[in-house]
Amino acid sequence: MRVLGVDPGLTRCGVGVVEGVAGRPLTMIGVGVVRTPADAELGQRLVAVEQGIEQWLDEHRPEFVAVERVFSQHNVRTVMGTAQASAVAMLCAARRGIPVALHTPSEVKAAVTGSGRADKAQVGAMVTRLLRLDAPPKPADAADALALAICHIWRAPAQNRLQQAVALHTATARTTARKGRTA
Amino acid sequence: MRVLGVDPGLTRCGVGVVEGVAGRPLTMIGVGVVRTPADAELGQRLVAVEQGIEQWLDEHRPEFVAVERVFSQHNVRTVMGTAQASAVAMLCAARRGIPVALHTPSEVKAAVTGSGRADKAQVGAMVTRLLRLDAPPKPADAADALALAICHIWRAPAQNRLQQAVALHTATARTTARKGRTA
Repeated sequence: MRVLGVDPGLTRCGVGVVEGVAGRPLTMIGVGVVRTPADAELGQRLVAVEQGIEQWLDEHRPEFVAVERVFSQHNVRTVMGTAQASAVAMLCAARRGIPVALHTPSEVKAAVTGSGRADKAQVGAMVTRLLRLDAPPKPADAADALALAICHIWRAPAQNRLQQAVALHTATARTTARKGRTA
Repeated sequence: MRVLGVDPGLTRCGVGVVEGVAGRPLTMIGVGVVRTPADAELGQRLVAVEQGIEQWLDEHRPEFVAVERVFSQHNVRTVMGTAQASAVAMLCAARRGIPVALHTPSEVKAAVTGSGRADKAQVGAMVTRLLRLDAPPKPADAADALALAICHIWRAPAQNRLQQAVALHTATARTTARKGRTA
């Protein structure tokens, strides 16, 4: 599967595309940052984020988009800009019918480092190792976007198994109920 | 001037178009609510908000869009949805080159009722009176959207005068500085 990870932000929006499946070596397809000038009007900045994300979707055609889940309790000053940039990323993906998944920062850190409280350097180091890069991607937003994509690829089988289990359970429950009624 | 007011929300996004200038009776051009199903995926809800806003822009061609400024400290549970819906509204306007203004809830209340701490009923009553309606628009989100548009129309001259004063002051200061240098 090919996943576009998005670390949302108005000043720097990290984007990274990773291809692969869980349990096999992963490949980095592209990494970068969508930037918007801090002195531009908010509406114009959102338009610039939209254009940047659209370009990444056009160029790399991901099957999934993984966006960092924004929490309102963290970092109150910048949280609105982060929420707005993430809304634009989700909108761009959903408009094309690409499934969007949200992962929390601690889910992402736990996925790539084994600890939900890992620091930026640790995440950067693991992204470098897992994607067999020569150096950690910079800035940190770019590395975080790749980590999000990796997290999505690795969590997807578990989520699929869970969905299958739920579906199976529901089907079984229905069959049992039907049997119960006809008995 | 014709203003589209937007009271952002994912479940109910209030929209109202008002035409007029400060100091003259105002006219309501349209009012409504863009709704999205609470059980739909977030990306799909944002797409639905976008489609709704686009329809209002197409139909009413406002010259300005006024959106409620979202504060992260209020109402933590719903604030992310509000921020995301407001981002979509701002994006739609900015993409068309329509200027976007943000007004705080207390600015809006103060503009239409005289008090920044007025309740919903008071805002609804004043919107009804100012736009000469038969009854308060419902739901409250629709009335709030009209109040935002009214607030923008009434604040615009003050903001323009302020900008003109700043421009004049800057020009005068420059002239004085030049005179100072040549003296």
